[in-house]
Amino acid sequence: MPYFDAASSAPLHPVARQALQASLDEGWADPARLYREGRRARLLLDAAREAAAEAVGCRPDELSFTGSGTQSVHSGIYGSLSGRRRVGRHLVVSSVEHSSVLHSAASHEAAGGSLTEVAVDRTGRVSPEAYAAALRPDTALAALQSANHEVGTLQPVAEVAELCRAAEVPLFVDAAQSLAWGPVEGAWSILAASAHKWGGPAGVGLLAVRKGVRFAPQGPPDERESGRAPGFENIPAIVAAAASLRAVRAEAEAEAARLRDLVDLIRARVVEVVPEVEVVGDPVRRLPHLVTFSCLYVDGETLLHELDRAEFSVSSGSSCTSSTLTPSHVLRAMGVLSEGNVRVSLPFGTPAEDVDRFIDVLTWVVTAVRTKLGAPAAAAGPVTASEAVGAGAGAAAGTGDLTVDSLGRLCPIPVIELAKAIGDLPVGGVVTVLADDEAARLDIPAWCEMRDQEYLGEHPVDGGTAYRVRRRS
Amino acid sequence: MPYFDAASSAPLHPVARQALQASLDEGWADPARLYREGRRARLLLDAAREAAAEAVGCRPDELSFTGSGTQSVHSGIYGSLSGRRRVGRHLVVSSVEHSSVLHSAASHEAAGGSLTEVAVDRTGRVSPEAYAAALRPDTALAALQSANHEVGTLQPVAEVAELCRAAEVPLFVDAAQSLAWGPVEGAWSILAASAHKWGGPAGVGLLAVRKGVRFAPQGPPDERESGRAPGFENIPAIVAAAASLRAVRAEAEAEAARLRDLVDLIRARVVEVVPEVEVVGDPVRRLPHLVTFSCLYVDGETLLHELDRAEFSVSSGSSCTSSTLTPSHVLRAMGVLSEGNVRVSLPFGTPAEDVDRFIDVLTWVVTAVRTKLGAPAAAAGPVTASEAVGAGAGAAAGTGDLTVDSLGRLCPIPVIELAKAIGDLPVGGVVTVLADDEAARLDIPAWCEMRDQEYLGEHPVDGGTAYRVRRRS
Repeated sequence: MPYFDAASSAPLHPVARQALQASLDEGWADPARLYREGRRARLLLDAAREAAAEAVGCRPDELSFTGSGTQSVHSGIYGSLSGRRRVGRHLVVSSVEHSSVLHSAASHEAAGGSLTEVAVDRTGRVSPEAYAAALRPDTALAALQSANHEVGTLQPVAEVAELCRAAEVPLFVDAAQSLAWGPVEGAWSILAASAHKWGGPAGVGLLAVRKGVRFAPQGPPDERESGRAPGFENIPAIVAAAASLRAVRAEAEAEAARLRDLVDLIRARVVEVVPEVEVVGDPVRRLPHLVTFSCLYVDGETLLHELDRAEFSVSSGSSCTSSTLTPSHVLRAMGVLSEGNVRVSLPFGTPAEDVDRFIDVLTWVVTAVRTKLGAPAAAAGPVTASEAVGAGAGAAAGTGDLTVDSLGRLCPIPVIELAKAIGDLPVGGVVTVLADDEAARLDIPAWCEMRDQEYLGEHPVDGGTAYRVRRRS
Repeated sequence: MPYFDAASSAPLHPVARQALQASLDEGWADPARLYREGRRARLLLDAAREAAAEAVGCRPDELSFTGSGTQSVHSGIYGSLSGRRRVGRHLVVSSVEHSSVLHSAASHEAAGGSLTEVAVDRTGRVSPEAYAAALRPDTALAALQSANHEVGTLQPVAEVAELCRAAEVPLFVDAAQSLAWGPVEGAWSILAASAHKWGGPAGVGLLAVRKGVRFAPQGPPDERESGRAPGFENIPAIVAAAASLRAVRAEAEAEAARLRDLVDLIRARVVEVVPEVEVVGDPVRRLPHLVTFSCLYVDGETLLHELDRAEFSVSSGSSCTSSTLTPSHVLRAMGVLSEGNVRVSLPFGTPAEDVDRFIDVLTWVVTAVRTKLGAPAAAAGPVTASEAVGAGAGAAAGTGDLTVDSLGRLCPIPVIELAKAIGDLPVGGVVTVLADDEAARLDIPAWCEMRDQEYLGEHPVDGGTAYRVRRRS
C-alpha cells in the first residue's frame, strides 16, 4: 500500500524504533537531577545533542530540542525578533514559507511589526537580488526555507545568507523538508527542523541558534534547553530522532539518486499519459523525492479520494481538499494552476514498481473523474461547439460574447465551463465567467496561460467575481 | 536500586510501553489527512482523547494534548487571561504553585498585569477564605494546584472552585501531581497535567478547557488541538499516555492505601531515628505517596549525594542542591526549615522492604554528614559551652551576647554555628549571626521555632545580614 506523502510525515525509520525502545528504560528520568537515573538520562540527552548537532552542522551548545518543528519555528522567529528589537521590527519572509512561518509573521505584523513577503517566480524560487532588496536598516530578521514543502524547489539559501550577512541581518532557515538529505549550506543564523519529516518520531523539533546571534526566548522563563523550549525533555524520542537522522544521512546520497530518477520518471510520464497537466516546481534544483502537478478539469478532493481507493496516499494543494476553501498559498504565490493538484513525496525505500503502478492508476483515475465531471474532451485545442452546452452558459446574442454563470459552483466547474464555452466563440470573442469560488481567481488565469488564451482581468459582480477571457486561437 | 522521586518523573508504566510500541506502526501519519494512514492515526488520536477525557472528567472536545505539562500550564494560563482581558488583568495564584505557574504569573506581571499570591499555612495549604478574599472585580483568572509537588499537601480545590464560581472567576488547576490518583473534584474551569508524572511517556501534556470558559489561544494560529497546542501531534506517545492513565487509575485505590501506609511509616520512623528533624506538609490531607522532611545541621547536597551512593534517588528543596542558591519557594512560603531537606515520592509498586532500608540508610547518612560538618551533638537542648568553639564565634566581652561571623559560608554552617554559640550564653543572652547565604533567612527563624528559641529579627550589615536570636531556655 504505497504511501507517497513523506513530506507530511515519514513512516518511522527502523533505527528510530530501535533507539526509542532501547532508551525507554534509561531516558524517563529528569536529566536535571543528580542521582543515578538523572545522570543516565543526561548522558543520553548529551549524546543525542552531539549527534544531531553534527548532522545539522552546528555546535552542540547551539542546538535545542523542542516539542515539534512548529515549536522550533515559533521559538526561533520570536526569539530572534525579540533579541533584535532595538534594531527594528521588520521581518522578511518568502511568500512560499510553511504556514508555521507565515502565521508567525502575520502575528508579528498584527502586534505592530512590519513585514515584507518576497515574491517567487513560477518555479517557486526567490531571487537572491529580490531578497536583498527587501532588507532594510530596521530589518530584525529574514526567513527563508531551504526547500519548498509543496513543490520541492530548492531556495538559494547560501546566496541569501551571504547577502544577509553583508547587511548584518540574521537569517532563519526552515530546513524541515531538506535536513534528511544533508546539512543546509551557507552562513545561516537560526535553523528549525522536525524529526517526523525524516522518519524520526513525532514530538521532536530541532532549533539551532548560532553563537553570537541575539536571541531572547519568549514566554515564561524555563531552565531547560537553553530556555528555548520549555518543558520536560522527551529523551527517548530525542534519542530516536538523533539516531534516525544519522541513519538517513548514511543512506541519503544513494537514496537521493534513486528517488531523483523515480521523480524524473513521474515528471516525464505524467505529461505523456495525462492530457492537460502542468508539472510545477523547479525541474532540476529540487528535492530528490518530491514532485507536484496539477490536472485541469479535475477536483483535488475526488482525485485524492480515488487515489486512496486505489491505495495511493498523496496530498494536494487544491482548494477543495482544504477546510479553508482557498488553494495552497504556495501555488498562488507561484501563479500556477491549483485544480486537480497532486503532491507526490516518496519515502526512503519506495520501490520503483510502486511508481510505475501509480502512473497507471493516475491515468485512469483522472480520465474517470473528468468524464464524471463532464470535462471537455481531453485534447489540445478548444472543444467543439456541440460539447459546450454547460448548465449556466448562455450566448449574449449579437455580440459574439458569452457569459458563464458558475456562481455557487466549486473548483473545477468554473474552469470546465470556461473551456466548454470558449469553443462556441470565434477568435477574438470574450467569455465572462461569474464565479465565487476562490480557486477561480488562480485557476482561470493559469488555464489561460496553459491554453494560450488571453486573460483580460477580473472585476467584482453581485455575489462574486467576473473573470474575462478572450479567445486567442 | 530504589527510585523515590516519582514526583519528578515516574518510570514508564508497562502499559505505556506496550501502547507506545503497538501504535508506532499506525500513529506516525498526519491525522488531518484523509488517506488511509491519516484516518488510522485519527482513530488512535480520537480514542486516546476519549479515554483521557474520561479519566480527567471532561468532554473529549474539551481536552487538548500538548507537548508537555509546562506547555499546558503556559497555554492554559495565557489563553484564559487573554480570553478574559475585558474583565481585567488580575491573576490570583497560591504562593506554592509549581514554577511553571509562578513563572507564567511573573511574566504576566512584567507585561503589565497584576498579581496576588495567596499565602499558605505551615502545612502548605491555602485557606479558601484567603483565596476568596483575593478575588477582585478585575480578576481574570485564579490558579490553584490540586496538590503540592514538594510537600504533598492537598489544596481545597473544590471549595475554592465554588467560591470562584460565585465570583464568576474561572479556576485553573495544575493537577500534575494528583491526576494519577483520581479526577480533580469540583467545578474547575481549566486543568493542566503531564503524562510522565503518572508513568506515561514524556512529551504529552493535557489541557482541559471547560465549555463556556472564555479562552483565546496565544501565539501564531495553528489548527491542531483546538488551536491550543501548535505542532504535529505525537500520537504514539498520546496513546501511551491515555492507556497508562487508565491503567494507573485501575490500580490507584489499592496502591494509594498501600503507599499511604508506607509514607505514614516514614513519617513516624524518621522523627524517631533522626534527631532534629522536621517533617513538613499536611500529615493527613496529602498525596498518598509523598513525604518531605528537613534535617537540621545537614546540607541537602551532601545528603542527596550520600543517599545516591547508597542507591536511593530522592530530591531536595534545599538551597545547596539548586543552581540558584535559594531554598525552594514552597518551603519558604510555608516558613519551614529548608536545610537537609529530602522529598521522598514513591512510585507505584514500591516494595515495603525498600522503605525499611531507606530509613536505616537515612539514619547513618545523616549522622555521618553531621559528624563531618561538626554539628552540635544531636540531642534535644542547647549544646554545651565546650562544644561551641565555632571558627567565627567570638564573645562580646561583658555583655553576655555573642556574634557569629558566618559570612561567606553556606547552609547549614550558619545554623550549626548558631546552635553551638547559643550554648555559651545564659538564658536571655542574644546571638547575632552574620550570614550572606539566602537559606539563613529561612532556616534561622525555622530553627528558632523548632528549638523554642526567640527569633528577634534581621537587619542588613556590611556584606550580608545579621540575624538575632535570644536564648529562651
